[in-house]
Amino acid sequence: MPQLVLIRHGQSTWNLENRFTGWWDVEVTEKGVGEAIAAGQLMKAKGLDFDQCFTSLQSRAIKTLNIALEEMGRLWLPVEKDWRLNERHYGGLTGLDKAETAAKHGDAQVKIWRRSFDVPPPPLEAGSAYDLSSDRRYAGIEVPATESLKDTIARVLPYWDARIAPALKTGQRVLISAHGNSLRALVKHLSNIPDDEITGLEIPTGQPIVYELDDALAAVDRYYLSER
Amino acid sequence: MPQLVLIRHGQSTWNLENRFTGWWDVEVTEKGVGEAIAAGQLMKAKGLDFDQCFTSLQSRAIKTLNIALEEMGRLWLPVEKDWRLNERHYGGLTGLDKAETAAKHGDAQVKIWRRSFDVPPPPLEAGSAYDLSSDRRYAGIEVPATESLKDTIARVLPYWDARIAPALKTGQRVLISAHGNSLRALVKHLSNIPDDEITGLEIPTGQPIVYELDDALAAVDRYYLSER
Repeated sequence: MPQLVLIRHGQSTWNLENRFTGWWDVEVTEKGVGEAIAAGQLMKAKGLDFDQCFTSLQSRAIKTLNIALEEMGRLWLPVEKDWRLNERHYGGLTGLDKAETAAKHGDAQVKIWRRSFDVPPPPLEAGSAYDLSSDRRYAGIEVPATESLKDTIARVLPYWDARIAPALKTGQRVLISAHGNSLRALVKHLSNIPDDEITGLEIPTGQPIVYELDDALAAVDRYYLSER
Repeated sequence: MPQLVLIRHGQSTWNLENRFTGWWDVEVTEKGVGEAIAAGQLMKAKGLDFDQCFTSLQSRAIKTLNIALEEMGRLWLPVEKDWRLNERHYGGLTGLDKAETAAKHGDAQVKIWRRSFDVPPPPLEAGSAYDLSSDRRYAGIEVPATESLKDTIARVLPYWDARIAPALKTGQRVLISAHGNSLRALVKHLSNIPDDEITGLEIPTGQPIVYELDDALAAVDRYYLSER
């Protein structure tokens, strides 16, 4: 039976500061490091093991993965890093304090930006401090100026189809370390969650989510590893 | 001009305890972590950058690489891990204290095992505590029972030819994090060092070695980054 585990990176500095982060490459906090260690220890204690790992091009997801793998004695596993697992791009909200943004634009507007399925935040201004379009990490990629969850899904799923699903179908046990919204994209797809429900689904940091899949990669079960 | 940097992992627990290590998967010490941090900071300060990384399947080399990349803000670089960059397999000496081994077998014999080009140590007994032949990390690989430096070279160079040299030839800047003897294999090849000299070449832990290469990947210059 194909086995898939999803993990959202441990707490980042901007999770802590309550700022919109998106593609900006912030670090994990000490608490986030602790979450990654605990996740690795839990997966090891529960007897989980993997053959292939996937992560984004963002340090907080990569570091969470590295720490968890070290705890599992599995640093040697192959890891594929791809921008399509990046967090949703938060556009012009990147770097802004969530409370200040709500005070300025109103709770209702911020809720739309954060929780609507297909309304992206205003685009990031080209050349602004958070513009990553000339970061060589993204060379050859058209860095978005903003993304809705729908936009995020539209680049996560082709990667799932091209790289992750084939690994699972050949019997590899897969671990994905990624972000709130790139993981929402996968959960929506695998658990067939409607557009208006997925935006409210919270994915906690550092909590391994186990998917038991059938041979067609449909979800048979989904649970937090800490609860089994 | 193709650019290659080699780094030997930071001090390991068995470097510190003066034990033969080989393929056994020991951790880096706190000092070793510090060496990896310093190496990353030095490479960043000197303006080095990379497109592709290679390392072994051994935690001490992978962790050294991860730490150095984090210091450089380059955790997102692709990393290929392969057993052919592993340390020389020390056979039946694995786990033994170097001083005790010298007391038992004599300095001359130990010197032959450690420093001859083509005399391997006695083979590791199958089923011994350090036998890795059933470790799933090496599934599909014929784990050696022992290796001379010559044997090590014989598996490092095909990997160089197949994976590393092609990356350099397409203009990628390459960082390799590996081990004393897998790096000796590369240095011997690149700097054309005779059999009887290479065994005495010491490769210090955590010191980035820079190779400037011509388009045919012959060495134009080789130096410790800390000395330029």
